[in-house]
Amino acid sequence: MSSPGAAKESHIDVLIIGAGPAGVMCANALARAGVRVRIVDKRSEGVSAGQADGCQPRTMEILQSYGLADQVFKAGAQIWRAAFYNPGTNGGVERVSRGAAVGLPQARWSFGVTLSQGRVEDVFVASMKEHADELKDPQAYANTVVLERLGHQDNATETVYSRFVLGSDGAHSWVRKHLGIGADGSVTNSIWGVLDIQATSDLPDIRNMTNIHSAESGTLFIIPRERDLVRVYVQQPDDSEFINPETGRADKTRASPEKILEQANKIMRPYRIDINDGLVDWWTVYVVGQRVAERYSIDDRVIIAGDACHTHSPKAGQGMNAALGDSHNLGWKLAYVLKGWGAMSLLRTVSYESERRKFAQDLIEFDKKWSKLFISKPQSSTDPTGVSHKHFMEMAKTFAGFITGLGLRYGSSTIINPEYQTLASGLVVGERVNPQTFIRAADGQPFEIQDLLPADLRFKVLVFGGNISIQGDLGRLKEVAVAMDASESFLRRFGHGDSVFDVLCFSSAKQETAEYLDFPTFFRPHWSKVFLDDVDITGRVGGEGYAKYRIDSHAGAIAIVRPDGYVGMLAPLSIHGVSAITAYFEAFLL
Amino acid sequence: MSSPGAAKESHIDVLIIGAGPAGVMCANALARAGVRVRIVDKRSEGVSAGQADGCQPRTMEILQSYGLADQVFKAGAQIWRAAFYNPGTNGGVERVSRGAAVGLPQARWSFGVTLSQGRVEDVFVASMKEHADELKDPQAYANTVVLERLGHQDNATETVYSRFVLGSDGAHSWVRKHLGIGADGSVTNSIWGVLDIQATSDLPDIRNMTNIHSAESGTLFIIPRERDLVRVYVQQPDDSEFINPETGRADKTRASPEKILEQANKIMRPYRIDINDGLVDWWTVYVVGQRVAERYSIDDRVIIAGDACHTHSPKAGQGMNAALGDSHNLGWKLAYVLKGWGAMSLLRTVSYESERRKFAQDLIEFDKKWSKLFISKPQSSTDPTGVSHKHFMEMAKTFAGFITGLGLRYGSSTIINPEYQTLASGLVVGERVNPQTFIRAADGQPFEIQDLLPADLRFKVLVFGGNISIQGDLGRLKEVAVAMDASESFLRRFGHGDSVFDVLCFSSAKQETAEYLDFPTFFRPHWSKVFLDDVDITGRVGGEGYAKYRIDSHAGAIAIVRPDGYVGMLAPLSIHGVSAITAYFEAFLL
Repeated sequence: MSSPGAAKESHIDVLIIGAGPAGVMCANALARAGVRVRIVDKRSEGVSAGQADGCQPRTMEILQSYGLADQVFKAGAQIWRAAFYNPGTNGGVERVSRGAAVGLPQARWSFGVTLSQGRVEDVFVASMKEHADELKDPQAYANTVVLERLGHQDNATETVYSRFVLGSDGAHSWVRKHLGIGADGSVTNSIWGVLDIQATSDLPDIRNMTNIHSAESGTLFIIPRERDLVRVYVQQPDDSEFINPETGRADKTRASPEKILEQANKIMRPYRIDINDGLVDWWTVYVVGQRVAERYSIDDRVIIAGDACHTHSPKAGQGMNAALGDSHNLGWKLAYVLKGWGAMSLLRTVSYESERRKFAQDLIEFDKKWSKLFISKPQSSTDPTGVSHKHFMEMAKTFAGFITGLGLRYGSSTIINPEYQTLASGLVVGERVNPQTFIRAADGQPFEIQDLLPADLRFKVLVFGGNISIQGDLGRLKEVAVAMDASESFLRRFGHGDSVFDVLCFSSAKQETAEYLDFPTFFRPHWSKVFLDDVDITGRVGGEGYAKYRIDSHAGAIAIVRPDGYVGMLAPLSIHGVSAITAYFEAFLL
Repeated sequence: MSSPGAAKESHIDVLIIGAGPAGVMCANALARAGVRVRIVDKRSEGVSAGQADGCQPRTMEILQSYGLADQVFKAGAQIWRAAFYNPGTNGGVERVSRGAAVGLPQARWSFGVTLSQGRVEDVFVASMKEHADELKDPQAYANTVVLERLGHQDNATETVYSRFVLGSDGAHSWVRKHLGIGADGSVTNSIWGVLDIQATSDLPDIRNMTNIHSAESGTLFIIPRERDLVRVYVQQPDDSEFINPETGRADKTRASPEKILEQANKIMRPYRIDINDGLVDWWTVYVVGQRVAERYSIDDRVIIAGDACHTHSPKAGQGMNAALGDSHNLGWKLAYVLKGWGAMSLLRTVSYESERRKFAQDLIEFDKKWSKLFISKPQSSTDPTGVSHKHFMEMAKTFAGFITGLGLRYGSSTIINPEYQTLASGLVVGERVNPQTFIRAADGQPFEIQDLLPADLRFKVLVFGGNISIQGDLGRLKEVAVAMDASESFLRRFGHGDSVFDVLCFSSAKQETAEYLDFPTFFRPHWSKVFLDDVDITGRVGGEGYAKYRIDSHAGAIAIVRPDGYVGMLAPLSIHGVSAITAYFEAFLL
């Protein structure tokens, strides 16, 4: 197909196959890190409508850590309330409750955001272009991929030598299949139709996330979206005509938006939903299937992420979130290995694969229970054996940490060390840092601590230094400073200048009495690096940070936060603590 | 100078002379309104450093109403705390107090923002370019201005015919002088040096707004800025060598950053300030003068704004704020006249000139008192007759509404009608709307009311409709809807489609019981137009809006908010109230 004269060669660090959410997010993270990255896709353009569309609260925090949350907030719709309808005494459905869509008090943003996958991808692609960069010393180019540009007259091929290949090419991943990685799982017989429409409806909750369980016709799920759209998931009858009797699979050619809408109107009786001006932004039909890939990489050189690793039902809104979470977890690890700062073990089973495959397995387990609950018959006056609303809400509460992403906890490993957990039980090792406002000591400006933990590739060394207004506390903090400044400390051994660590110091002292100049000079290479646990000067935000993290206001603690915002370890505020941190980093930093 | 062949002619709506803050802000407001506007300046580029640099809290609200606050927040520095130093017992100065820089509880943003004038101008220019637009029916081109491009080889001239000319060409306004408008005032003998530097200092408040009053050497004022800069205003001795003895004026050639710094170090003893790496971003010397132009326009066709109208000392940080306030006040009025929606009286003495000249006179009066206080000798153990810190703080409190811009109240006029003030004493007619969060009825999303009042040229009709969950209240609200929908109502007579009015309805009902579908259909042409006075579903924000605005939760009220965010009138929630509003608009809308 290709003429030899047109053959081209190139050498890069990471070749990403598949420009969906997992692909573009990883590409952006790597480009920001100064890694030479290239992303290819068999589609020549992004997705303009449909597909995954929800950003859970933890995903918004992650986007914020890349400076990208604002754009998604601006373009997306917010979901604050969730409503539940069950069979009523009127022969149709009636509302049984309405409450917060995100009920967790530790949420920084207590709402979900919906925005089409294509728009979210655009945000990453735009950011990536800003960070295009050159590269470091080459290592082995272990992978060779021949690219062929489809649909172009010349059909020129290009041979790409890359150190790593990331397969983020979706549920039917070519990369996964090419590598012979199995993806075991099961397919349910639950078939769903999906519509993205501008709707006219007399349902009072049409702009809320709404679950409707009918007595006889199945369930329906409404998600409000940007541009006045709503997404409606509509369960189809078990003997749905959308199933191709020959293949047993969902067959879009046998379905239509009108048929899906007809079923929706059966379920939500006595309410009605209609399509404004007949505008259907996107629609599809699918059968729920759940699978997890048996491995996430081959020889640590070809890695897979996103839907290539796991598929599940879209009902809990995890699709895009799980994919973005994979890449957020992988990005910094790949960058560390490529820059020569981190050991290959960061990619191996002890880290990326073990953390994210465990998550995917939990996700599938959750999804099975959740999906089953969804399609179970609801309790009603005629069917007392159905699922009660109380049970449904209890399950929703149980799974809230999972659904929002805020409850994700990575298990113990080389890079997750819970040994000193008791020093700060409100800063859970393996979890992300709960939001809390601290006051910058020099100028009194309040800062949300999450905004002090950007995805800038650095480990954050959060030194909770006790009360600097008290001589004893200050004396110990100075000792810690000396230990951290010593040549054998992790800062000097693995810091690569200021590239790997950012040290921030938080005192339990109050701004009434403490000056920023009171902090040991070691902790203020710049005036902006030292903070107080206090209410801001206007009395609106902040305060009680030590108490919320359950850190002793004198004894203090040191927290190591990974570049992806997860607490890696805690250590005592002491010379011994500095040694323990050094030992932690020795295991995977170079 | 020009060759006849190169002569060019153009016809526009508004020619703006002077691309400082007042000019670019007005140009942006007009471009957004679809007005043909052209801005010229004798400078070919913007100001990159120095000059005005502070945005007061009201200015940030105004920028937000144009969607531009985020950019200024991102680039600027925030000022949260103010510190005061007086002569101490150590022979030098010592801190007497430190508190909130913006102490007013009604502030939406309780801090100041500093950013160079040039960067703020850039924000407006970029926004303006996005809104470049074509135009409506021409009226008379009353003004003819011949432009000559300086420093270009061809020196081509261009004749510009415009309906209006805005002179925003600064303190030495060519336009003002050309029109023979006097600007009376006085010059003090207080001479100041100003430095924008990156500083090294042992003063603990170097990143706070800091007033230092020395016993013998005068006063000094520190304002932290973006890019780690601080601005230092340094009072010079009365016999300063910076005064040219021949002219009696400040003479920059006789001054230097080093000399200003030397004086600063005298004042702030025992503390020291030095310049990092000798980097001086900008510096100048000046003598304080206060002037107000005797008129703001000639024949309503040539109008002046900003420093062309008023000059005063920079100490209270009003310079750029006053200029932006002028243009914010003028922009919508010019647009209304040009679009044929508003009477010429909007520009005449009853409105732009009367509102803003009154403000400038108040500003000058304030500035005289404030400046005097600044250079008065402080009370000390050796000088008990000096100004006490208590007195200084009392004055600061008195002037806080003025300094922040949040206390500005436009007096009664055709467009400011306080007749029904008692219906909502927390919504002060003539003042901007105090921040308050309401809950969108359809989806429970909380909204800051100020964000429902964008500078989109529309009058906002805020219908506080009582409790829609109560039949009596709902019945009255329906009557009001009928009256507003009638052909004789202001909405139909002056609405120009949806161009002039945006109607929003706020019920005192709670989301527990009220559905958005309960609002009369008239108030929900779109689901997003109706709100509840309630706490958001997660319990974090909102609630008590009726109480804070002191509106009866059943009787309600209607508030008319001008396009610039100031309350124009209040009216009863009744058919009579709708008639009163129609009469109000009859006086100046077409």
